[in-house]
Amino acid sequence: MKCFFDPRGVALIGATAKPKKAGYRILKNLMVGYKGRVYPVNPSYKEIEGLTCYPSVLDVPAPVDLAIVFTPAPTVAQAVRDCGKRGIPGVIIQSAGFAECGDEGKALQEDLKRIGRETGVRLWGPNCMGLVDGVHKHVFSFVMERIWDRGFAAGNVSVIVQSGFLAAGFLIDLMSHESMGISKACSIGNKVDVDECDLLEYLIEDTDTAAIGLYLESIPNGRRFMDLCRASTKPIVVLKGGTTAAGAKAALSHTASLAGHGALVTGALAQVGVVEARDFYQMFDMCRTLAMFPDLPQEGRGRVALISGSGGAGIVASDLVQQAGLELAELSPATCETLKALYPEWMPVANPVDLYPAIERHGPKAYTEAFKAVCADPNVDAVLFHVIALGIFNERFSLLADVVRSSGKPAFCWLMGLREEVADMQKEAAEKGIPVFRELSRTVECMAALLKRTRAGALAAPDLSRHERIDLSGELDSVLRTASGTLDEHASKRILGACGVPVVEEALVFSGDDVVRAAKAFGFPVVMKGLQPEKVHKTELGLVRLSIASDREAVEQFEDLKRAMDGKGTVLVQQQIRGELELIVGLVRDQQFGPAVMLGFGGVMAEVLGEPVFAVAPLGDADAFCLIDRLKPHKLLEGFRGAAPVDREALAQILIRVGELGCVYPRVREVDINPLIVKQGRAVAVDATVILSDVGE
Amino acid sequence: MKCFFDPRGVALIGATAKPKKAGYRILKNLMVGYKGRVYPVNPSYKEIEGLTCYPSVLDVPAPVDLAIVFTPAPTVAQAVRDCGKRGIPGVIIQSAGFAECGDEGKALQEDLKRIGRETGVRLWGPNCMGLVDGVHKHVFSFVMERIWDRGFAAGNVSVIVQSGFLAAGFLIDLMSHESMGISKACSIGNKVDVDECDLLEYLIEDTDTAAIGLYLESIPNGRRFMDLCRASTKPIVVLKGGTTAAGAKAALSHTASLAGHGALVTGALAQVGVVEARDFYQMFDMCRTLAMFPDLPQEGRGRVALISGSGGAGIVASDLVQQAGLELAELSPATCETLKALYPEWMPVANPVDLYPAIERHGPKAYTEAFKAVCADPNVDAVLFHVIALGIFNERFSLLADVVRSSGKPAFCWLMGLREEVADMQKEAAEKGIPVFRELSRTVECMAALLKRTRAGALAAPDLSRHERIDLSGELDSVLRTASGTLDEHASKRILGACGVPVVEEALVFSGDDVVRAAKAFGFPVVMKGLQPEKVHKTELGLVRLSIASDREAVEQFEDLKRAMDGKGTVLVQQQIRGELELIVGLVRDQQFGPAVMLGFGGVMAEVLGEPVFAVAPLGDADAFCLIDRLKPHKLLEGFRGAAPVDREALAQILIRVGELGCVYPRVREVDINPLIVKQGRAVAVDATVILSDVGE
Repeated sequence: MKCFFDPRGVALIGATAKPKKAGYRILKNLMVGYKGRVYPVNPSYKEIEGLTCYPSVLDVPAPVDLAIVFTPAPTVAQAVRDCGKRGIPGVIIQSAGFAECGDEGKALQEDLKRIGRETGVRLWGPNCMGLVDGVHKHVFSFVMERIWDRGFAAGNVSVIVQSGFLAAGFLIDLMSHESMGISKACSIGNKVDVDECDLLEYLIEDTDTAAIGLYLESIPNGRRFMDLCRASTKPIVVLKGGTTAAGAKAALSHTASLAGHGALVTGALAQVGVVEARDFYQMFDMCRTLAMFPDLPQEGRGRVALISGSGGAGIVASDLVQQAGLELAELSPATCETLKALYPEWMPVANPVDLYPAIERHGPKAYTEAFKAVCADPNVDAVLFHVIALGIFNERFSLLADVVRSSGKPAFCWLMGLREEVADMQKEAAEKGIPVFRELSRTVECMAALLKRTRAGALAAPDLSRHERIDLSGELDSVLRTASGTLDEHASKRILGACGVPVVEEALVFSGDDVVRAAKAFGFPVVMKGLQPEKVHKTELGLVRLSIASDREAVEQFEDLKRAMDGKGTVLVQQQIRGELELIVGLVRDQQFGPAVMLGFGGVMAEVLGEPVFAVAPLGDADAFCLIDRLKPHKLLEGFRGAAPVDREALAQILIRVGELGCVYPRVREVDINPLIVKQGRAVAVDATVILSDVGE
Repeated sequence: MKCFFDPRGVALIGATAKPKKAGYRILKNLMVGYKGRVYPVNPSYKEIEGLTCYPSVLDVPAPVDLAIVFTPAPTVAQAVRDCGKRGIPGVIIQSAGFAECGDEGKALQEDLKRIGRETGVRLWGPNCMGLVDGVHKHVFSFVMERIWDRGFAAGNVSVIVQSGFLAAGFLIDLMSHESMGISKACSIGNKVDVDECDLLEYLIEDTDTAAIGLYLESIPNGRRFMDLCRASTKPIVVLKGGTTAAGAKAALSHTASLAGHGALVTGALAQVGVVEARDFYQMFDMCRTLAMFPDLPQEGRGRVALISGSGGAGIVASDLVQQAGLELAELSPATCETLKALYPEWMPVANPVDLYPAIERHGPKAYTEAFKAVCADPNVDAVLFHVIALGIFNERFSLLADVVRSSGKPAFCWLMGLREEVADMQKEAAEKGIPVFRELSRTVECMAALLKRTRAGALAAPDLSRHERIDLSGELDSVLRTASGTLDEHASKRILGACGVPVVEEALVFSGDDVVRAAKAFGFPVVMKGLQPEKVHKTELGLVRLSIASDREAVEQFEDLKRAMDGKGTVLVQQQIRGELELIVGLVRDQQFGPAVMLGFGGVMAEVLGEPVFAVAPLGDADAFCLIDRLKPHKLLEGFRGAAPVDREALAQILIRVGELGCVYPRVREVDINPLIVKQGRAVAVDATVILSDVGE
């Protein structure tokens, strides 16, 4: 990938001298900051802007590592072939008119793909804005030149944006408003070859990048994406478009790209420590925040101290901190002593810390002393302070910034006031590593992104060796390798049981005697079910009989079930389990992420008790526990209303085993354990279905 | 209140010539834009800044309607007395050192209150920033002069802010960033006399005000506040500080003001059509949005059309629109035809409308034609469009703005791009009545505030005459007027039944014969409960017996209950009702809002099924239905899993009656119907407690 980011020589195929054309704009942009040689290519010119123009890329002198192509779509294939012949390792295709433009364009893009494979040339694009590097001043893009009116705002945040138009819009916006510096901005376009994973891999190693933000509409190579995120020590923030039904529909209509299952993507990102954003500037804000605190200690617990000169600011900040799932720090006795000495006598010491009266008494000293004490407080994990810039605060702000910085605690500033002073403070704060925000709720959101990221921690990759890998014997193994379609309840549970999932005691019965024997073994009451091939909706078919309490009733129900099935099915007797909670555990096979484990609440309340949560398999212990923790309302798992708390270890094992089943046997398309009943804390699979791929799949 | 907003002559008590003092700043501010005469008052000067300075306010020539006081706290009382003597109707006290500063200050404030009452002078403050009027350029405030560096940004949004420091901070911020114009900004401080209600009443009638925003920490006069909001045709947005436990604690510690019950405040505001904000700039953004659409038709249904030149913007906007509870409009056939003609052939027509390819083909015409069609579409209630300002869009933006404006549909613009062009467009959009936002989620929030406000509609005041007012006969009436403490279950339900609340069939029993007779009347199974004075936790005491299925069992349980109560209580037999849903309905008496009705889910799931919702009594039909609609997850009320849907009319009647009980009988401190069981859609009170005030209360 180095050829894209640090090329020795760049050829521009489709250069032109017409000022309004993109081919001219790219040339001007190349000349703005790029230090290497630039070679315009166009048979119609001998020279453009003082540079020799070549009839073909084949005529361009060495070394050239990168070609940028901006010619009509049908001519691009030949240009790429020429690049291959010329030995140019990387090409950024900025022309549009490919897969985004109907069938003809799709065919052109398929051609490119083939040529790329044949020539070994790495292709970036087409239909993209290319690359802008604010640190090295590389503008390999047709983005408008006016973007540099205010110079390059270099920063340590890099971004990857699927939509070219948005990437351009944001770059122009951030640069011209001087709101944030950028390291590398990559617009990936149609991803004929180079995709978000290739770029992410590069940026994770890039010394100029401290945090990475991505706007993505699809993550086709979900597993590789996860592996990269997991391995990254740099914070990664993702805004995933199409997480709702409406958004997914829009994505499908826009790029025919599958937005995927929103909850599953959320689960996958959480699993690998990625922060999920929900809006664009929010993503940038989170990135610049996390770039300032790349490696905060793990033990942070989200205890926040608020410092303000206005009671109102402290009150609303308290509301937002609680709503964000953080807590207000309980100040230590030492901090309280310091504040008490600064406060007037009538004023109680508390968090939020209201410094106005103290400042009236002691001047700026009140600020610095209070900040020192609060920042040094072992009960405080982060500080949020409010500043109103009134034309007198600049030096004080410097003092505060130094106090905060030397304490090593993350501090967040909510800033309002006079335009010029606000701008100055924003600049100073950025230099001193204090994230500054203009809206209180955004301040708290970014603080939560940092503190919660810390708490989730960088999850270790699942260590399958720690678990006994599931190892099924002859018959079951053979079923899973060769059978197809929906397995019946009993067969499904035999497989799950063999994988280590606790299943209800049950037996197939073929006579009245069998029934009585089984019932005696399990103890009354028992449940009896009629199983028929491929028919999973037993309850709807009237084939489930509950609360059978005696031998006679059992035999009667057996006969009745046989009749109801016309002699075509088998009858299953099982222990009736009344638990305190019903869960659902499943396995789905996602197009982008592969096998994933689902956990949700079951029973009649399933539909109203929040959404199920997902994790991509295989699951390590940490993944499984994280999945359990993400199920809401979590109270239900904690021993609700006198029930025993759910045995987390045992439930985690079930989730891990179901995931492994999907990983080891690719023919397992779906698993549905519903219900998984929790009784005295222990979960048992009471009904389950395993669905295998269809014949020939 | 006119004396504060449009005074003929202003006296400044505490004027000074020392440039760093507030008394000088106020004087300079008075001279900036106020057209009337200004009279500095200070015995130490003959003249300040060219104005005659008077030794006392008594010496100031007529007419003077307003005095502004900025002298040390202990001297303010005398100044106010002098104002009374001088016949000045209004005084703004900006000095601090009163109730916010311990016991001594509290005493001084009490003095002020008394003097205000005695003299009839209206007192605004103390401890406040006063008043700034951006339209008339009145600055009756010690806010820094630099705020006017860029002139007055006049607008049609007025705000009332409890915290003076915040009010100043925001004014300075808004004015110096030129982000929004302001009509009147009022800082209310300690509210010794003039409070948010007085100001709100004035602003509702103020011709320069189109929308009103309030930041409040407490609403002590909740009922008057509600009446004013209900009567207002102008949109009102409230940011209430202290809605969470953490925030309420902070409020208590800051101003010793009771933040009140967050959910109850939310309910009260929803009842009277107030939009609730959760952050400061958000409040301003909602205000400027609603000021542009003061009287949108009622029939709007929240169907949004998205128009963008970027697929990504449309996708994320779709996600946010769905999350906000709005929906994507289904474009009408006519609109689809128009778009189809503009689109290239390969491109499907859908909402979000992606105009990029159409613009490439047809130029700006694509914009205007598409906008015309979408804005005229009867299926579209509002339009959200995305603009990237690239230095070429200005004229197009004007065209679009005109199209949108002439359609009468509310349109929202999400804007990014080049700084100068963004600023120009913001200005133009504000003039043309198009709200512009820089963050997509904020755009959607404000759109939702508008569309949902429309849908909730301006609720009519409850029309009690429509209902038969509860009219209890002798004994029950007398109990409610004279008894005290907790009434037992049976007495409580007799009262509720008499009010029109359906209650379970039940009877007090005193012998085995009674028991058998009652059970026969109700049908088995029955429930039997032991009632003891003041003991409400019957279940915990083992005094509730369920599922009694026979005469013998009934008599046995009767004897057992008598024994368990040591002969001290009575026994109640009631029909056992198994319903499909358990609700809780209650009455609470709030310190700020008085009697309020509570509705929540009951039973074992109460704690996990969201929060109860509140409405202030008395309730009209609209209030009751709105309360029911606000209960989440609402699915449970709609006929969940084959159950009958809850009879909304009947449930509304119960809520109304419980509220009336609280209104008619002030001694009713609390009502708790738990559970209110819903069986085949009809709600019946199964257990209930009425708590009256204690003796002497």
